[in-house]
Formats: sequence, structure tokens, C-alpha cells
Amino acid sequence: MPSEFDLIRRHFTRPAPHADLAVGDDAALFRVAPGMQLAVTTDALVAGTHFFHDTPPRDLGWKTLAVNLSDLAAMGAAPRWATLALTLPAADEGWIAAFAEGFFDCAGRYGVELVGGDTTRGPLAMTVTLFGEVPAGQAITRAGGQPGDDLWISGWPGLAALGLMCLQNRVRLADASRALAALHRPTPRVEAGEALRGIAHAMLDVSDGLVGDLAHLCECSKLGAMLDADALPLAPLMTAGVDELLARQILLAGGDDYELLFSAPVDARGTLAALARKLDLPLTRIGSLIEGTGQILLADGAAPPRPLDVRGYDHFISPD
Amino acid sequence: MPSEFDLIRRHFTRPAPHADLAVGDDAALFRVAPGMQLAVTTDALVAGTHFFHDTPPRDLGWKTLAVNLSDLAAMGAAPRWATLALTLPAADEGWIAAFAEGFFDCAGRYGVELVGGDTTRGPLAMTVTLFGEVPAGQAITRAGGQPGDDLWISGWPGLAALGLMCLQNRVRLADASRALAALHRPTPRVEAGEALRGIAHAMLDVSDGLVGDLAHLCECSKLGAMLDADALPLAPLMTAGVDELLARQILLAGGDDYELLFSAPVDARGTLAALARKLDLPLTRIGSLIEGTGQILLADGAAPPRPLDVRGYDHFISPD
Repeated sequence: MPSEFDLIRRHFTRPAPHADLAVGDDAALFRVAPGMQLAVTTDALVAGTHFFHDTPPRDLGWKTLAVNLSDLAAMGAAPRWATLALTLPAADEGWIAAFAEGFFDCAGRYGVELVGGDTTRGPLAMTVTLFGEVPAGQAITRAGGQPGDDLWISGWPGLAALGLMCLQNRVRLADASRALAALHRPTPRVEAGEALRGIAHAMLDVSDGLVGDLAHLCECSKLGAMLDADALPLAPLMTAGVDELLARQILLAGGDDYELLFSAPVDARGTLAALARKLDLPLTRIGSLIEGTGQILLADGAAPPRPLDVRGYDHFISPD
Repeated sequence: MPSEFDLIRRHFTRPAPHADLAVGDDAALFRVAPGMQLAVTTDALVAGTHFFHDTPPRDLGWKTLAVNLSDLAAMGAAPRWATLALTLPAADEGWIAAFAEGFFDCAGRYGVELVGGDTTRGPLAMTVTLFGEVPAGQAITRAGGQPGDDLWISGWPGLAALGLMCLQNRVRLADASRALAALHRPTPRVEAGEALRGIAHAMLDVSDGLVGDLAHLCECSKLGAMLDADALPLAPLMTAGVDELLARQILLAGGDDYELLFSAPVDARGTLAALARKLDLPLTRIGSLIEGTGQILLADGAAPPRPLDVRGYDHFISPD
């Protein structure tokens, strides 16, 4: 019977042509291209906190890399290399093989090479550290927002939270597959992130909910925001199982979206419309940055703008 | 009451003057010096697998970084930046503060800047990814050993395993403090690792036991090894509580040493003796590399060399 070490070697050793030394020594070695900064992010997924224990391992493999890709995309960086620390309760070859398949599906799709890792026995959890390159000085931080900037969101925020609510039997849909896919196999907006260099002033990815993450962007940019409720991109599926008011709450508060939230000058509207068409990815203008650090207002056609209580949107939904 | 987020920010935000952007955005940004390769390693410590749940948090903070520093030292790389993914069962400020103190004690001692991280709720575990620099082409891998090379070990392997056996009440010592310090606050051989560039042919750090790790070096270098039993550096403390035969077993098999095991040409003996004096660190010649992939022989004065069964030395000791 193969040992756990053999299993890991069998399923996680893949070519890494852009590294000088990959898995198998005390450290990996690689070179950063001249004129580039290295962008580094790390994210852990823990069973019971971030996912259910029975989540399909192939989806988990995809997602553990995808959530990190989303962070790099939010800097405008191009992903290159990753390390993976995997903690497993048992050496189950079927599980390991399926996890590796999902991980390398995602790695192959976005050009990431696995260069190192660590496998340990313990409660199921995985930590990826992901390295990317960005031309020096061109990364898009959270701090660059300007008063009057438009606020934009990619894709269809809220679908992942809707998927989670389906799993929890809090919502019933005739066909939940798209919402479950958003939850289990999120699409990191890597191409969009890179394309937004030189256009977006400030950016982050929405992982903890649109409003909560908008508050982080506002805090870092020392500004406030006005959201236009009627402009929010409500996917038709969002109102298939719940009323529109709840759907909007889910869109604003739900986590696990991995969409890009960014600010851009008003004169970039045409460029962004063209980019959305080119990437075949909705980019929706949902409001603007305003003076007044940390204040987030929601405007809708009928009523005067009202402040949103950001705290109420923290950790709205969790698998437990 | 401060939130978990506030606690982490309070205790883990420190200056990172050699990073362009550190904790607080979607990714950290830093630049690698021209002519340098980046060396990257990741190691996870999991409660119940790598340490007891009641291990003092200050020691854990030190050790979680130290075990990664040991990996970089084994490449001859200079440590620079780190990320930390911390999984905590509860937001206990006393614990977090003590853990951070130990972590930054170690970081300050070896010039490491914390540039990013992730905090999650779940079973106690910590994963560090550590980045170092090494002049391109000068890293010391496991694969460079030559037949006839001397084999060397730094420090006093076995002391950490002895400390663990004390905690398990398998050994009683009048004063176990030095053995417990070796277990809880290992000293990564960072200066020695860098100094060995241009001298050592092959190197790794001993984390899983001397014989087991020697087998890895032999496998990568496609060679075998002859160990001289009488030359093994047996610290006096090692024979204070157990007989010499068991002490030698502990030295050969015990894990958690974080000493450097390396091969070097015979004509480097004088240089290495001088280096040991300069660093005030024992460097002991314990055998040599021989032809015959993977075969490890133990010679002692009395009997003919006999093959060591490497498998018997795998995972000899664990905290469970």
C-alpha cells in the first residue's frame, strides 16, 4: 500500500517549467522578471468554517486555489507560482486524487505552477500561498480611490450566498446548479484584474460580502460611498426563490463571491464598457465614492439615501 | 470588546521596511534584488500532530517561524519575508499576544518581515510561508552530493526528541530544561546555512530524524552513506537519563532537530573547523557518502558495517 508521502508525490508532482526548482527539496527556487514586483497572498480554508466536510474534493481543490487567485486579481497581478499546505485526517487516495484534479484544473486554467508544499495529519484544512508578478508601481491597491470615482462590480455577486442557502435548505430553487457552481467553483477574475491596471484607481475582491468589503476599500481610501440600489446587478436566479428585497440583501451581504469591486474615474466608462464586452463579463456601475470616511449610503429611486450599517453585514452567512 | 480582526491587527502589524506593501491589502508587494533567486518554503504546525494543545503560545510562535527558517537555511538562503495563516479555536487575546511575541522574537532575531496573512476560526494550526534570497545558482540542494564527500551535522541532534520523551514521562532528567528548549524553541542554523554556500555540496535540515533525512539526501544525490557510530555527537545530557544505546537511537531517529546535515569535500575539513569556531556551533563529521543509491550503513569500531533499516526510523516519535 502506498504511503501518504507516495500518494502526495503521485498526485501533486507536475512540471513547473517557470521555476528553477520545484517540489522535493527544502525550498523552491524561482526568479522574478526584471522590473516586476512580486505579489503574495495567502488564504486558508478550514472544514466546518469555510466549507462542509462533505464538499466534493474536486471542488475544494479548485476553490482553495481560486480564492487566492481572486486576491492576486484584485491587485492587477499575473499569477505564477503557488505552495500548498494540506492537512488531512486520513490518507484517502480517492479524495487526494480528486482534490489534486480540481487544484490542477484551476492551476492549468490560470497558468499557476505548484512549486512546494507540506502535508500533515490533522483536521481537514488547506492553505495556499500564491505568488504573482506585477510591473513595479502598477499594482492596484485598496487605497487609491478618488472622490467622484464610479464604483464598479464584476459578475453576479450574491449567487454563492444563494447557493449556500440552498444547501442549508433556507431557499428552494427549481435548478440550483448555477448558484452551487458559484459557491463551489468560483471563477477568479484574473483577466479582468490584469486588464484594469491603468484604469481602476482602487480595487479589492469581494469575499466577505459586497458592503463589508466596500467598507474596507473606503477605509483604505479615506472616503465614503453612495450605492445605487436600483443599479445593483441582480441575476434573474436571485429572485427565483426569494423576494426582491431579500435578494438584494443577499447580494449586498453574502460572502464567497470573488468578484472584483473597484473604483474608476468617470471618463473610463466607455473603456470599461468595451472591456466588459471583450471579456464577456458583466461590469456594472453601482455607485460612486464620496467624501466622508467610512460612510456608506444606499440610494434608491423612492426614498432619500440612507446609511447602511456595515456591521450588520459582517459574517452574515457561514456554513455552521 | 475588540473583534478578532482588531486583535490580529493589534498584535501582528509591525513595520516591514523591505516590503513595498505589507499586511492590509489583498496581497503584499515586494521586490527581489537583482541577481537573486527567490527561495520559498512552507510548513504547517497542527495541534495534536506537531505539538500538544497546551504548548506555551510564545514557544509556538517562535517555533512556527523557526521550522521554516531551518528549511531556508538548508538551501543557503537569507530569510526576508513571511506570511502567516493562523487558525484559532477562539479569540483569546492573551494567547494571541504571547504567540505574536514569540513569532516576532524569532522574526527580529533573523531579520524576517511579516508581510501578509490570514486568520480563520477552526482547530488550532499555523502555516508559515517564508521567502528568502540566494544569489542565482548558489543554492545548496539535496542533489549535489559527491561520492567520497564527508557527511557533517550541526549542533546536538536528538535533544528535541529527548525533550519530547521527558514530556511523555518516558525519560526522567534532573534538569530537562535544555532538552525542552531544543523541542520548543529550536535554533534555526541560518548563519551556518548561508556560510556553507560554496562549501557544502548537498544539504538539508533534519526535521524527521537524522537517518530518515539522510535517506532523502542520498536518494536525491543518487548515493549511499556510511555513518560512523562512534563519531555521532552525543550531548552529555543524552546519556543522563537513558543508556548509551538508546541515546544513540534517539539521536539517529528523533525528529524536530532542525540541525543542518550536509556533505562537503574532504579538503574542506579545515575550513569547516574554522567555521564551527567562528559560529560557536559544533560541526561534526559523522561519515561519508558512498556509491550505492539509498544504502545507509552504520559502522562502529567493534563490528563490521551493517545496513540501517531506514523505514524503522520514520515517524519514530510523535506527540500523540
